[in-house]
Amino acid sequence: MDGKFSEWDDTIVAIATPPGIGAIGVIRLSGHQSFEITNKLFPSKDLKIQRPNTLHVGYLKDGNEVLDEVVISIFKAPSSYTGEDVIEISCHGSPYVQQKIINALINNGARLAKAGEFTQRAFLNGKLDLIQAESVADLIASNTTASQNAALKNMRGGFSLILKAMRERLIQFSALIELELDFSEEDVEFADRQKFLDLLDELAATVKNLLQSFKLGNVIKNGVSVAIVGSPNAGKSTLLNTFLNENRAIVSEIAGTTRDTIEEVININGILFRLIDTAGIREHSADLIENMGVLKSKEKIQQADIVLYLFDINTFKDDEIISLISDIKKQNSNVIPVANKIDSSDEILLQHCKETFKEAVFISGKMSWGIEILKEKLFTIVTGGSNLSENVVITNARHYSALKEVQASLLEIKRGIENKLPGDLLSQDIRRCLHFLGEITGEISNEDMLDYIFSKFCIGK
Amino acid sequence: MDGKFSEWDDTIVAIATPPGIGAIGVIRLSGHQSFEITNKLFPSKDLKIQRPNTLHVGYLKDGNEVLDEVVISIFKAPSSYTGEDVIEISCHGSPYVQQKIINALINNGARLAKAGEFTQRAFLNGKLDLIQAESVADLIASNTTASQNAALKNMRGGFSLILKAMRERLIQFSALIELELDFSEEDVEFADRQKFLDLLDELAATVKNLLQSFKLGNVIKNGVSVAIVGSPNAGKSTLLNTFLNENRAIVSEIAGTTRDTIEEVININGILFRLIDTAGIREHSADLIENMGVLKSKEKIQQADIVLYLFDINTFKDDEIISLISDIKKQNSNVIPVANKIDSSDEILLQHCKETFKEAVFISGKMSWGIEILKEKLFTIVTGGSNLSENVVITNARHYSALKEVQASLLEIKRGIENKLPGDLLSQDIRRCLHFLGEITGEISNEDMLDYIFSKFCIGK
Repeated sequence: MDGKFSEWDDTIVAIATPPGIGAIGVIRLSGHQSFEITNKLFPSKDLKIQRPNTLHVGYLKDGNEVLDEVVISIFKAPSSYTGEDVIEISCHGSPYVQQKIINALINNGARLAKAGEFTQRAFLNGKLDLIQAESVADLIASNTTASQNAALKNMRGGFSLILKAMRERLIQFSALIELELDFSEEDVEFADRQKFLDLLDELAATVKNLLQSFKLGNVIKNGVSVAIVGSPNAGKSTLLNTFLNENRAIVSEIAGTTRDTIEEVININGILFRLIDTAGIREHSADLIENMGVLKSKEKIQQADIVLYLFDINTFKDDEIISLISDIKKQNSNVIPVANKIDSSDEILLQHCKETFKEAVFISGKMSWGIEILKEKLFTIVTGGSNLSENVVITNARHYSALKEVQASLLEIKRGIENKLPGDLLSQDIRRCLHFLGEITGEISNEDMLDYIFSKFCIGK
Repeated sequence: MDGKFSEWDDTIVAIATPPGIGAIGVIRLSGHQSFEITNKLFPSKDLKIQRPNTLHVGYLKDGNEVLDEVVISIFKAPSSYTGEDVIEISCHGSPYVQQKIINALINNGARLAKAGEFTQRAFLNGKLDLIQAESVADLIASNTTASQNAALKNMRGGFSLILKAMRERLIQFSALIELELDFSEEDVEFADRQKFLDLLDELAATVKNLLQSFKLGNVIKNGVSVAIVGSPNAGKSTLLNTFLNENRAIVSEIAGTTRDTIEEVININGILFRLIDTAGIREHSADLIENMGVLKSKEKIQQADIVLYLFDINTFKDDEIISLISDIKKQNSNVIPVANKIDSSDEILLQHCKETFKEAVFISGKMSWGIEILKEKLFTIVTGGSNLSENVVITNARHYSALKEVQASLLEIKRGIENKLPGDLLSQDIRRCLHFLGEITGEISNEDMLDYIFSKFCIGK
């Protein structure tokens, strides 16, 4: 163990519950001094001699000062989340009281945990592999059935199992090829090259499927941003409200009311769409702040996954709309033109508009007409019509890029066999492939990578 | 038990941790079906046959769907917070996952708890008196050492003990007087009237002290609102930033930047001051939104506990400032004039200003000059110079108004004795006094009162 790990002898502490006021707050300690430190603040009994997995009520005191009445949960190494001695203090949910308890624990020898440090210790102690550890963060961040299921599947080892199976089969072949090297003088082939090629094809197919699942995985995990743009009074805020069925955005008859962008989230069939209402697009505006809003909305068009371009069917001019749509398309190819206010348009106008804008969706935000069609269109664009399957889905960019490397090295091995590369070179390519597989599960890891991964966790996990 | 209590046969459930994303979320159940309901979602083991005060790890499942991997804490009646069977489920801190678990528990027979219902049950089951129950909410809301100590003192029964002692001594006398009624034909006096008068004086003195502590208690609990007003560019935002040592308010050279009021909190010697930055006071403004800001600031002056009236020492006109200060004083008597920007003023001007505004504090928000003097002045105004003592402090408006009634009825009893009122009338007055004392601790209570008290709690407590 190097210098890094001596740090790990520390006992770490953090508030594990969300910030803010609640009925209960939970403070978590992990490390070989967890009991010793907590004992100093808990005069009622000696926690060290209590049975593991038990609960203890009492006052937490810092010297003579009563800090709170608490319930203490004790977990003993190795049967704990981190694999170390763990204590959880359930206190009253006042951020102020929690902070005082944390301070008292630190004064008695604990160290404030870094983000994800509890889970990092669980990984380093072999309680979880890296995929499982990462899925803990995903589960906490999950906000739809789709993202919850993907995270739970990975947490329970679904993805890890696929990779482990791949790794084992590659290792078998690798062993045979390395055996050939020992007999290199004799020119034998223990490893059947055709069988190996078949295996490589099979593995490549699995990797390809996993890689393809990432597009959906990304959508499941991060949602989809949808910029709603259009001229002032095209009805953007009304549409947003209709989507939300509540009046979060300020709706007003005065053009240019929406000065700042408003972001709201809706759930369409398990996928989250973040709807971004922007300031109206128009050429001239006397108001500086309004103009800043327009600039922001151009930025939003470029950043969004999908752009809803809204116009009022009753005041639209063909040329202007056509030119605006083509302008927007230059910045974002996923544009859905939406003709609004069809409730107050006549039949001839509607007909004309439908002929002019074949790709448009026709709605009335006010009357909730056509909203389901619009939602369906949004869902189809991101999922390509596929349903959210039961299969393992890659949701993690790190896994994706490592799998890309696996894919490249599988191809390299295949080319090597086809070109009758000598065993030692072949063996090197296989090791390269195994390396990237191991990097995903964490069998092969380095400190920088781990620090980076766990730094994205929340504090207390 | 009436209809109300049949409701109380329910098993209630709520998220007990603050809303939002965190490492851990805690879901709490209380009621005689807590174990039965949780068992349906927890296939790993039968929780009913486990020892109380133990912890159990496993998967929570709704049918075939895995909801989460959780740790379950079990507490058995009557040794629990509510006095009922209680289960706490510690799950991953995703609001989405928590909501799904809550839904599954409700589908299996639990009912969503009302605000404060866990503590209400604890009270109804005799685990806490009403003062202690109310101090639980105060402790959760506490945000300074002063408010934490006041709440903990009440939670541990400090205030209750004083009231109980008062009640007991009154009851003793009351019993003697009622005994006299049985012998009313014989004109005896079991209760020594002079001793009783002495007791009444003693109790009245205690009540008076408690009532006086409320002003401080209110400040400890709710903090003090301080409106910072002044003409545009007097340096209000800069002063606010200096107080906070960070740039939360937007500071700009353009007059009238602060359109909405900004509220920030600082802690001076354990008391919270809520600083409210308002739009500049000036006579004419072309901008409607700016004008709305000015209107709001007049409202804030009336609502604030203290007004800091800020002016720029370098551009001030004596008459204008004097007239404005007198205007503000009509609306709020606690005004501190603050002359700002003394860093850029010359000595003569400063001297002149000091003579003109004897009550003013002279500062430079930019250079942090005079800020400590200003803080000290704020603290002295609210505490009257008294230090935050170790005594019991009334922080609750309900206790205050009941104590007012106690005070009035003590006076009534005293007058009765002095006027040689017959025992039966005296006895009635004593009962009235006992009633109000009992109402504070909850020995005497009614459902409406309880519902009102507990409705102000947070959910899950």
